[in-house]
Amino acid sequence: MTDIAAMLNTYPGKPSPLAEDALVLCLQECLNCTQVCVACADACLADPDRAALANCASMALDCADLCGVTMRVVSRQTAFDPVLLRAVLTACVEACRACYEECRRHALDHEHCRICADACHRCSHACRELLASVG
Amino acid sequence: MTDIAAMLNTYPGKPSPLAEDALVLCLQECLNCTQVCVACADACLADPDRAALANCASMALDCADLCGVTMRVVSRQTAFDPVLLRAVLTACVEACRACYEECRRHALDHEHCRICADACHRCSHACRELLASVG
Amino acid sequence: MTDIAAMLNTYPGKPSPLAEDALVLCLQECLNCTQVCVACADACLADPDRAALANCASMALDCADLCGVTMRVVSRQTAFDPVLLRAVLTACVEACRACYEECRRHALDHEHCRICADACHRCSHACRELLASVG
Amino acid sequence: MTDIAAMLNTYPGKPSPLAEDALVLCLQECLNCTQVCVACADACLADPDRAALANCASMALDCADLCGVTMRVVSRQTAFDPVLLRAVLTACVEACRACYEECRRHALDHEHCRICADACHRCSHACRELLASVG
Repeated sequence: MTDIAAMLNTYPGKPSPLAEDALVLCLQECLNCTQVCVACADACLADPDRAALANCASMALDCADLCGVTMRVVSRQTAFDPVLLRAVLTACVEACRACYEECRRHALDHEHCRICADACHRCSHACRELLASVG
Repeated sequence: MTDIAAMLNTYPGKPSPLAEDALVLCLQECLNCTQVCVACADACLADPDRAALANCASMALDCADLCGVTMRVVSRQTAFDPVLLRAVLTACVEACRACYEECRRHALDHEHCRICADACHRCSHACRELLASVG
Repeated sequence: MTDIAAMLNTYPGKPSPLAEDALVLCLQECLNCTQVCVACADACLADPDRAALANCASMALDCADLCGVTMRVVSRQTAFDPVLLRAVLTACVEACRACYEECRRHALDHEHCRICADACHRCSHACRELLASVG
Repeated sequence: MTDIAAMLNTYPGKPSPLAEDALVLCLQECLNCTQVCVACADACLADPDRAALANCASMALDCADLCGVTMRVVSRQTAFDPVLLRAVLTACVEACRACYEECRRHALDHEHCRICADACHRCSHACRELLASVG
């Protein structure tokens, strides 16, 4: 459980025009995906199959970074800039897409890649839902 | 819900000697606290009372950064270095302590500070439990 | 002085098709801009004029995060994905643009905003040059 | 060239009691080391010798994260907390030490590790100099 929804309701400024449900889900999935990607990259390093997983580790590191920064930008409502928000969410969608494509190739053989592909897929979906709400 | 525990069980290398329950709780609280602190700093900026909340915003930014990086280091098991792990957890405990001390001073007047103080308190506790397990 | 260019030459894999000069400059400006934005947001918090600078602080925090993550993605050559790279650079350009627009409004009165606007302008330019090289 | 020193002089609040030279050098080395470590981890992934470099990549990722967050905390002067600052600098020193120890083992065979070991050594030194100035 997280305090994401509770914190949203305490914001003392003008609330952003974003749909609250989409906002909460996006933040939740970004938080989860950033941790899963850090752990998947680490598992790729430790895996005997690491030669085949080098691209996967690198993609997961990119995705961890994008999900983390998207969580931060989406959490901030004070300087709401829809053009920036769209660009950040789009970059996060691409990072999740790239990591998902690589991870699912290894999903049958490596459970860490299966979980990571799933987390990326959900995060990408949540970012696209929020994008639709930015207008 | 997060995939933290599921990912831990997929690690293909030698597992770290840390207690799994403490590890999962620490990661969960770090994830939550980093988001709450980003949102609290943003709420402080938007608050009409922002002059009194400047220190609080700054502490929350430090705490967001420390919780985020602690989540990353704790998630990695491949290069397990107990001296580094202890130092990182100790820094996170101090960041949570500093942010908690500042936030609780404003907790009665500002709900975002009350939630943030609570998140910092729980995160600090979880980091100290994991520290005890590092030995 | 940094080791950016020296590190690029040590990469043992297939080098990315990016122009090396544009790559080095982008990394250098992202590093500088992330630090300047963190410091500018902190200066905004401490400034007696902080009510007028709240949006500026928030924009600078977004920009610091985007420049930092762009530096990381651009530094990685192993999982080269041009679609992701373009999206990340585009998001960084937007963050620099938004922070520049806000900072330059305060540049005459606040030297930290003048320096930050300048750093954002240079970083945005370096990202756009690298974008041109991605093709 | 960076704007670190110029930004320090624009801080509108009460300046921290830290020695300015040590502060500037610490920020400069943290910026450099975070980029070098990201690039070294990526080079380890792409290296045919990647099995021997797995620990090195993992250490470099930890060190990149610690140097990045130390740069952020040290850049903020508004909520000066010497206990937190000492803990963060100590954690950064340990991350640089751990990465240095691993990288120097590979320095003769891998130029990316040689440069990274050197960057970690300089960053650790700069953090310890600043620690001495915190008192």
